[in-house]
Amino acid sequence: MTTRLENLIDMGCGRKPADLVLKGGRFFDLVTGELVASDIAICGDRIVGTCEAYEGVEELDISGQIVVPGFIDTHLHIESSLVTPHEFDRCVLPYGVTTAICDPHEIANVIGTEGIQFFLDSALETIMDIRVQLSSCVPATHLETAGADLPIERLLPFRNHPKVIGLAEFMNFPGVIHKDPVCIAKLEAFQGAHIDGHAPLLSGHGLNGYLSAGIRTEHECTTAEEAMEKIRKGMHILVREGSVSKDLHALMPILTERLSPYLALCTDDRNPLDIAEEGHLDFMIRTAIAHGVEPLAVYRAASISAARAFALRDRGLIAPGWRADLVVIDSLENCKAQMVFSAGRRVTDALFATRKPVDPVGLDSVKARTVKAADFATPARQEEQPVIGVLPGKIITEHRRYRLPSSGNSSTVDLANDIIRVAVIERHGKNGNHANGFVQGFGLKKGAIASTVGHDSHNICVVGVSEEDMALAANRLSDIRGGFVVVEDGKVTAEIALPIAGLMSLEPYERVRDILYDLRKAAYALGTTLIEPFLQVAFLPLPVIPHLKISDKGMVDVDRFALIDG
Amino acid sequence: MTTRLENLIDMGCGRKPADLVLKGGRFFDLVTGELVASDIAICGDRIVGTCEAYEGVEELDISGQIVVPGFIDTHLHIESSLVTPHEFDRCVLPYGVTTAICDPHEIANVIGTEGIQFFLDSALETIMDIRVQLSSCVPATHLETAGADLPIERLLPFRNHPKVIGLAEFMNFPGVIHKDPVCIAKLEAFQGAHIDGHAPLLSGHGLNGYLSAGIRTEHECTTAEEAMEKIRKGMHILVREGSVSKDLHALMPILTERLSPYLALCTDDRNPLDIAEEGHLDFMIRTAIAHGVEPLAVYRAASISAARAFALRDRGLIAPGWRADLVVIDSLENCKAQMVFSAGRRVTDALFATRKPVDPVGLDSVKARTVKAADFATPARQEEQPVIGVLPGKIITEHRRYRLPSSGNSSTVDLANDIIRVAVIERHGKNGNHANGFVQGFGLKKGAIASTVGHDSHNICVVGVSEEDMALAANRLSDIRGGFVVVEDGKVTAEIALPIAGLMSLEPYERVRDILYDLRKAAYALGTTLIEPFLQVAFLPLPVIPHLKISDKGMVDVDRFALIDG
Repeated sequence: MTTRLENLIDMGCGRKPADLVLKGGRFFDLVTGELVASDIAICGDRIVGTCEAYEGVEELDISGQIVVPGFIDTHLHIESSLVTPHEFDRCVLPYGVTTAICDPHEIANVIGTEGIQFFLDSALETIMDIRVQLSSCVPATHLETAGADLPIERLLPFRNHPKVIGLAEFMNFPGVIHKDPVCIAKLEAFQGAHIDGHAPLLSGHGLNGYLSAGIRTEHECTTAEEAMEKIRKGMHILVREGSVSKDLHALMPILTERLSPYLALCTDDRNPLDIAEEGHLDFMIRTAIAHGVEPLAVYRAASISAARAFALRDRGLIAPGWRADLVVIDSLENCKAQMVFSAGRRVTDALFATRKPVDPVGLDSVKARTVKAADFATPARQEEQPVIGVLPGKIITEHRRYRLPSSGNSSTVDLANDIIRVAVIERHGKNGNHANGFVQGFGLKKGAIASTVGHDSHNICVVGVSEEDMALAANRLSDIRGGFVVVEDGKVTAEIALPIAGLMSLEPYERVRDILYDLRKAAYALGTTLIEPFLQVAFLPLPVIPHLKISDKGMVDVDRFALIDG
Repeated sequence: MTTRLENLIDMGCGRKPADLVLKGGRFFDLVTGELVASDIAICGDRIVGTCEAYEGVEELDISGQIVVPGFIDTHLHIESSLVTPHEFDRCVLPYGVTTAICDPHEIANVIGTEGIQFFLDSALETIMDIRVQLSSCVPATHLETAGADLPIERLLPFRNHPKVIGLAEFMNFPGVIHKDPVCIAKLEAFQGAHIDGHAPLLSGHGLNGYLSAGIRTEHECTTAEEAMEKIRKGMHILVREGSVSKDLHALMPILTERLSPYLALCTDDRNPLDIAEEGHLDFMIRTAIAHGVEPLAVYRAASISAARAFALRDRGLIAPGWRADLVVIDSLENCKAQMVFSAGRRVTDALFATRKPVDPVGLDSVKARTVKAADFATPARQEEQPVIGVLPGKIITEHRRYRLPSSGNSSTVDLANDIIRVAVIERHGKNGNHANGFVQGFGLKKGAIASTVGHDSHNICVVGVSEEDMALAANRLSDIRGGFVVVEDGKVTAEIALPIAGLMSLEPYERVRDILYDLRKAAYALGTTLIEPFLQVAFLPLPVIPHLKISDKGMVDVDRFALIDG
């Protein structure tokens, strides 16, 4: 009886035909930077031969093509793709993403440990290697009402799960710096393990204090200058290009060969529409190269350097003894995946069909009270009021102040200045909170857009011109167990149901993508000038990102980390 | 009550004076390659502040000096320094070596698990961070008689010791390739953990088979060409410069910035005499730079890249949150340590004095039978005989053949051709084996040199011109419980006792160094032209290094991995 290890050695030595041999191609050696003409022999889940001739039980001709190590998305929320981990796997793996390090932060904020368990159960079934970081900040802040609370005692049981890497993005950086006991307990428990960072714009002594707690990775840099300070202070920078936060262009100056061993790539939040139109990490790679980044630098960041940052020691190179996560591409510049291998298995529909399904969870998570138009009224004011300034394609907002027009006792929208209403409605059945405010930059001329995806607590967030349409949109979300809704002139013009915790669809990703096109069209019909209006709605409540946000408790001055009175 | 973590954060934020601040210097950022003018604030064992101004309870002015991360020796046998781990610590840490990844292979071959335990006990006390890899090949081969046997069952109890990294250099590469069950069992047990390699000259399919078993690091490359194949096949190359094996010059072509993230440095075997005369890893660094290697490349290899290769994730950079292993040097080029900090503690005599001593072990390990001159006689032969060809400064030998002169029934030495006698005498009290042969290249004109250090089984190895002197030298080793002995004209002219397993002295390293000078002088008086005659004697029995060796069982043809008959 030959053991697995004996088989690996036999096939590596060429004494036995390998399970699979890719013949006629070249691989990109991310250490030397060479394109090496070579057979690639595979036994089970491992590469066993390169740089020598091999025979295989199965042989594939890849003449003229290039093989690179499978890509690693170092930080993402699968929930933001609006599909289940199984559908994410089927959607993204064919682009060459063989490892995804996810933080189930969104579902955890809604349904707690049940959501983490759902991700871990799914990760054991997906073809792609999904790794899970344990959500460190649930609730994200005290400035909002979350559906769950995950102190360290609830995280510890997951600590040694084979799919768990460490503690996910430690967003509550003020909590770290000010030694909040809940933060300290979590950091303490994960000393020596990986602790992921999230500290936009943090610098100087504050950054040093944050890093002293053992935090090592950062995906929130939006300028090369910010990234350089963090690099100089020992952080591994995860260059991000998501559907909302797009930092790739700003960070291209750091994507150099010298820095590449200490960089990685990530998407953070990316929806199936962008994936369909542009791709995934492959899009980042080809975009970077098109803008003059050295292929060696960006391919390293996409695999070996990412693997090292997260101590995934078995992957990231094409060499004997390494995990057979391979992407066959047409050229380094185009980076279009022709074939993908995950742990030695060729990625096909048939392979996806072998996965055991995992039962959906959190199907009754939307417990908001019914609202009416009058709930959106705000008192008239003589003085200036805070207005959230939305920036297209950014999750950072500006803290603006305007004197708003009024009608009777109420402040009203100011379409001439592109100022409309925004509201957040608690939907976890905890307290029925409802907060109103104003937002500038959506371009909406009528109607309303509502969503149960509202980072990080995922209360209902609704923006609109008409209070009636806002009420209809918010109430419709309860009917469909969560999702996105567009209302125009008293009618729902488009919607998608996201019944898993109000965050994820039960449908295949292709169907979700098609519905998102309809939704976008319906939103554009309201006049919005934002390319991704739903994503921009979803980030309005996120109080860990500067500068002005809104939660179910009211408007939040993020710089003061406090609610704004009245 | 402030916890350690709270203290780290407070001091990092600059709210509290740091325990220690280095002021006025610059640090070498191994990521960016910049020399950064910066205070360095330390709290306990960690760096908590760089790139900002700090106050400290203690402040040290290091104006004009440069701070680099502590050096990591990635592969060495402390036994080869002939002193205890405590003395090695005191001897080598002041050169800036803050981490040593050792393989207690020598002592394990003599006294087994007791030797490994001695190293682990010592490692818990030393100031330097000594990490232990578990000796994978005890006995090294079936071609010699070792003092111990360490199958996987005897290694497993040590696997999770906090100082254990993984499985040490897997020297028995033929055993891997040919799936020897004892090798397979060890490799199987350490899949997923670090498995260190040792496969000199192995290439092609054989190398692929070896690597397929999950082996990742290699310190045996002696040419850049050999190293490049291994690098291309995913190995992390540990560039070695020891007292015998000196590969630095040959491997300088690979010490480039591009490859530097995947390289490390090691000494393997280095004696206190070389350390005193040249230094340790600092010597490698300044030598490389003097020969044109970029400082960034060699300093990376000396710390951050080494740390990553062995998953020591807390060290290798000077940045907040990283272990405060620091070397203050005069200049990058000179690399002369002015001050060293190990986990935040300044290295001084007083610090060394705080260590708890560890009781020596293996004090009665030399159990050889008494020999007489006649035991060294070899039969006269008409035909050519195998002669070990020693190469100065190399552990590889040549397999040469000569017709030797004879006297009566015996072959004799041939001083005109620099051919003298060599013998190996079993000394573990197992079987009283005694093997004779011939060796060329020592330059000895008279007398004998004997040693209980004889890799890897550490039987007595003796070379000499006179059989009487050889017998005297070998017997003297039993009297002094192991060591080195030089005999000239019937008299012991120099000796050192190495009573710990016949490998290590009980004396301070300074005393050992002084005695070694005397020994070398005594050996030179015999006419030897080799700079390090004792080291060359010690490697004559090593049957895992090509091409011709001698063990207590007889002459070994390493290329055939077999004993030579008769």
